Amino acid sequence: MYIILVYDIGVERVSKMLKLCRQYLNWIQNSVFEGEITESQLRELKMKAKKIMDCETDSLIIFISKNQKWLQKEIVGKEKNDTDIFI
Amino acid sequence: MYIILVYDIGVERVSKMLKLCRQYLNWIQNSVFEGEITESQLRELKMKAKKIMDCETDSLIIFISKNQKWLQKEIVGKEKNDTDIFI
Repeated sequence: MYIILVYDIGVERVSKMLKLCRQYLNWIQNSVFEGEITESQLRELKMKAKKIMDCETDSLIIFISKNQKWLQKEIVGKEKNDTDIFI
Repeated sequence: MYIILVYDIGVERVSKMLKLCRQYLNWIQNSVFEGEITESQLRELKMKAKKIMDCETDSLIIFISKNQKWLQKEIVGKEKNDTDIFI
């Protein structure tokens, strides 16, 4: 399945969360990731994320689409993704 | 159609963009919005957003699903939405 993941977490936990999400997904913007993932990988990712998060204040939203084809993506302005880091 | 919109823009333009997006969509987290929108409304929103944005540095990503049913949403941690503002 294909997911979009966005997080809103305390700045002191951002680098850990970024590192975790990049193990499973592609970073596309700020705190936004997307990618193909299996159900068991997603379960694993959520379990690890909960360990990093302060669930009183932090939030993680996951949009799940069974098929990437059902979701169209449009970018306005600058396209920011992993390649930016290496330029 | 149903869309998810995420923006990553310069801090000095955030309040204008937030105000604009809330006219068309529901705020769900940080710089993330979602909601039902017509094609013409989305065109209008993008046109207005471009006027606010610095397209050299700012970015707007829109995920479009023809049907909200095709997209499942999961929240981990704190649910942040419009109601938070009024609490």
